[in-house]
Amino acid sequence: MKIVVIGASGTLGRAVCAELKQRHEVIEVGATRGDYHVDATNLPSVERLFHEIGRVDAVVATIGKVHFGPFREMTADQFWIGLRDKLMGQINVVLAAQHHVNDGGSFTLTGGILADEPIREGINATTVNFALEGFVRGAAIELPRGLRINLVSPTLLEESAQAYGSYFRGFEPVSAQRAALAFCRSVEGAQTGRVYRVGS
Amino acid sequence: MKIVVIGASGTLGRAVCAELKQRHEVIEVGATRGDYHVDATNLPSVERLFHEIGRVDAVVATIGKVHFGPFREMTADQFWIGLRDKLMGQINVVLAAQHHVNDGGSFTLTGGILADEPIREGINATTVNFALEGFVRGAAIELPRGLRINLVSPTLLEESAQAYGSYFRGFEPVSAQRAALAFCRSVEGAQTGRVYRVGS
Repeated sequence: MKIVVIGASGTLGRAVCAELKQRHEVIEVGATRGDYHVDATNLPSVERLFHEIGRVDAVVATIGKVHFGPFREMTADQFWIGLRDKLMGQINVVLAAQHHVNDGGSFTLTGGILADEPIREGINATTVNFALEGFVRGAAIELPRGLRINLVSPTLLEESAQAYGSYFRGFEPVSAQRAALAFCRSVEGAQTGRVYRVGS
Repeated sequence: MKIVVIGASGTLGRAVCAELKQRHEVIEVGATRGDYHVDATNLPSVERLFHEIGRVDAVVATIGKVHFGPFREMTADQFWIGLRDKLMGQINVVLAAQHHVNDGGSFTLTGGILADEPIREGINATTVNFALEGFVRGAAIELPRGLRINLVSPTLLEESAQAYGSYFRGFEPVSAQRAALAFCRSVEGAQTGRVYRVGS
């Protein structure tokens, strides 16, 4: 398969690329690194990307900033970070790429554990990860030509534990490599509208 | 209790006000009608509203536009409608009002059946309604002073069946009055982080 990974230079993206490259042609896309560059928060930028790349069999998105901070002093602009970046960034990928993925191809997006396990200061992530589950369930019944769409929802990554572990006391981290397996299950499997929870 | 209902002139809001007024002081807020006016998509406008109203015991939001239309031709701007209006509009209400609600007071927001039952052309609503569930679950564990927050998720209203029924074939509508009871359960009950599903 020809597979586009958007967010390929991130912790999770690198692991996903490493797994998929064992069996597939992988096109690595990043904001500033990789084979192609894209600003996923900007739909025309994503549309240009897929016009350049052409037909593909699968699209994986492992992108998305969210805001961590106390709700009592959160601003609307801070709340918009996750909506604009992690949520709408990934939705833009599907909006643009749906016209460039071959019949029976797939989308695999990235949510996260905070949908199931809210933590203090994590409300932006919980909201966005829930929204992505809703988006995937909605898109799964509407995408044509046998196109599939799933969400991978990993817990804290071992590789991110140093940076984010203080928010996640008592959470058992998983390796990015293990989380990457769930992306393979989505891309190389046959299910649609699924949420693959890793380490929850 | 002193209860603010934002969206008081809508189909659902009118029914909620009618129920709550039997036992409480209700302040009706709308975009252009009611005791006070607000643009919920604009956080400073909501902040001004609560500075004018002062302390209250409960806040109910029954607002929110979403976009209905085929995903294959949806634009980012169309997808933003639900995120900006129904999602961020209600989040702005909680962001602003959290500092004006008395100890033990509550927020009750409005989601909808499409979180559980996606339909064609309804992906924007499904995404937004899921996001609101996430927001409520995240806020419930972080709000201080015993503040509670719940979501009411009604199915198609009888009063809206003529306008929207063609999207909802086979769905059994409920009256706005019946949906309003769930708002009373949230406002006058003791639970938090709950989703009250009506007619699903």
